[in-house]
Amino acid sequence: MDDVTFAVLGTGGIGRRTLDVARHKEGLTPVAACDRNGVAVDHDGLDVAELLDATEGNIASGPEADGDTPATPESDYASDGGAAAAEGGSVDDGVKQAGEGAGVVASAQGEPTETPIDDVIAESDAVDAVLIALPNLEHDFVPRVAERFADAGYEGVLVDVLKRSRVIGMLDDRAEALESSGITFVCGAGATPGFLTGAAALAAQSFVEVESVEIRWGVGLKSGYEDNRGTVREDIAHLDGYDIERAREMSEDEIEELVAERGGQLEFHDMEHADDVLLERAGVCDAEDVSVGGVLDVRSDEKPTTTTVRVTGTTFDGERGTNTFELDDATSMAANVNGPALGYLKAAVLRNRAGDYGVYGPTEVMPRF
Amino acid sequence: MDDVTFAVLGTGGIGRRTLDVARHKEGLTPVAACDRNGVAVDHDGLDVAELLDATEGNIASGPEADGDTPATPESDYASDGGAAAAEGGSVDDGVKQAGEGAGVVASAQGEPTETPIDDVIAESDAVDAVLIALPNLEHDFVPRVAERFADAGYEGVLVDVLKRSRVIGMLDDRAEALESSGITFVCGAGATPGFLTGAAALAAQSFVEVESVEIRWGVGLKSGYEDNRGTVREDIAHLDGYDIERAREMSEDEIEELVAERGGQLEFHDMEHADDVLLERAGVCDAEDVSVGGVLDVRSDEKPTTTTVRVTGTTFDGERGTNTFELDDATSMAANVNGPALGYLKAAVLRNRAGDYGVYGPTEVMPRF
Repeated sequence: MDDVTFAVLGTGGIGRRTLDVARHKEGLTPVAACDRNGVAVDHDGLDVAELLDATEGNIASGPEADGDTPATPESDYASDGGAAAAEGGSVDDGVKQAGEGAGVVASAQGEPTETPIDDVIAESDAVDAVLIALPNLEHDFVPRVAERFADAGYEGVLVDVLKRSRVIGMLDDRAEALESSGITFVCGAGATPGFLTGAAALAAQSFVEVESVEIRWGVGLKSGYEDNRGTVREDIAHLDGYDIERAREMSEDEIEELVAERGGQLEFHDMEHADDVLLERAGVCDAEDVSVGGVLDVRSDEKPTTTTVRVTGTTFDGERGTNTFELDDATSMAANVNGPALGYLKAAVLRNRAGDYGVYGPTEVMPRF
Repeated sequence: MDDVTFAVLGTGGIGRRTLDVARHKEGLTPVAACDRNGVAVDHDGLDVAELLDATEGNIASGPEADGDTPATPESDYASDGGAAAAEGGSVDDGVKQAGEGAGVVASAQGEPTETPIDDVIAESDAVDAVLIALPNLEHDFVPRVAERFADAGYEGVLVDVLKRSRVIGMLDDRAEALESSGITFVCGAGATPGFLTGAAALAAQSFVEVESVEIRWGVGLKSGYEDNRGTVREDIAHLDGYDIERAREMSEDEIEELVAERGGQLEFHDMEHADDVLLERAGVCDAEDVSVGGVLDVRSDEKPTTTTVRVTGTTFDGERGTNTFELDDATSMAANVNGPALGYLKAAVLRNRAGDYGVYGPTEVMPRF
């Protein structure tokens, strides 16, 4: 395929790693990136190495994260695994990690701005695709960002790695506006939903009736724990007996205690992940037949369980069976989020160039390599 | 999605089973079917039960099969498994199984014709998609059929379940003609290539470099053996030490002897399946890094080995791993050919309606459920 230029909104874990993975992919040129304080644009291609160095450690993890401007990607472990954050590694003292001088503005390519998203929109005529790796602390934030691109008459691709089921409906509400602008939006294009939802939809092809889809992930987060305390807190809301309010109110000590009580492993069941609505939308099964869960180990970098998709159904000739998709334990969640995100982005660009606009999920788009 | 009308060229194993599977799928209305002697058209929807009864046992398996007109689908076990043919079951004496009165013309809906494909083309204004389930004994037969649709100005979907690598290039040669006619062609949309190639392309998403793709299938063919002697012969050409010429020249007794020597199991390595060129075309890996093989057991209906796709590669963060896709042994190859064929057909119709024309492989299209 011809070269694809893309921008990244948000240079938290997912944004940064996407830039990193893109260096290994053919035909992808990053031309813009922004965070809450700064924007970097180079239509000949950003110097990714320099930008990554400058934004290293640029991951807000505490309650101080600002919901309205990008720094942290929306991240829980199923799609923004700590194994990935861990790769950020040690913090370079030469880079300011907090406050006005942190992040993109610390890069030689960065300019300070109070309107980072608008600044990228202003350049979007020369941008084929935009990866939205923004914190989605308010559920309609990503949909509203998409709407701003449509309002500006953007013709191109938007991809996000959102996870919460309720966001899909908010995007659907805006589908017409996106489509008439000439936008091809692939939503939920990380690991789950995304990669694993796509695998489920594919595995379902043996069957004429699907009775269950079980998605189970494992993440080892020892090295990345410190960088991801905020996400651990967010995930605690998914634990049996907890909710968002309760998790928000917990002190750091209470969280440590909870983690210690469970030997460093948190196990999640029936998470609110959009895999369910996306698979229902694709006609594969009812949302209630989809379950997403996993195990996070904050004391080991090994995955505590193998990431697996199991699709059980009945064939046209009346046999019942379970097809299985399994990721090697050696593949970090970062690899499984950012590779697919770029794969879906590439595929969406091809569709967009063919004049195929609208909102699509990972059950409808085969990601390109 | 809106209703999709489709035609089937060829009412051998794949054509018949596709009609059967379509009954279990929503939004698919078969409106035309043909074989070498007859054509049945009903724009309100064919009576599939009646047609299947009439064409039962209509599977030519011997060397007498006529390469130029449809009766047998192109079939080796990897995509037209005997477990499927076996479901054809016993032959109804009331239906003529050979000669001019066999097949579609034996149906109350069938009309005799000497130009079955042209007759379907004549109706194609009201046909969204055509599944080409023709014998591809000459490698350019399916590409030439596609060309005839383009010559007639057909605007819609063509899907085939071809398998041989060399056919892909022949389709690519015609891509421009197909595209300008308004045709969206998904080639190799059965089990392999098709379903399993798609799974390989998806599984590759964890990696930035893929070193190998191994596709291995199992088929148990006890009940279907008699109906598939021709295909067994064709497959013998894939055995180590055999080639097409040698397989053609073997007597039935020699084949029986070979099968007996191997205890009823034939094992295939490095088959010429288009998975390799399709994955190379998608940029996943070099064609030579793809291997397709399997085990056929003619003395059992159980699969002698589990159908598995293994993709080995390296992640962006330097880890090496193998992702795996595994089909339950209970899923017959018929389920794994015809479900995906209709899934790719549905997906292609959506693309076609969006104005996206051209030749696509299963690495580029996510089949719909």
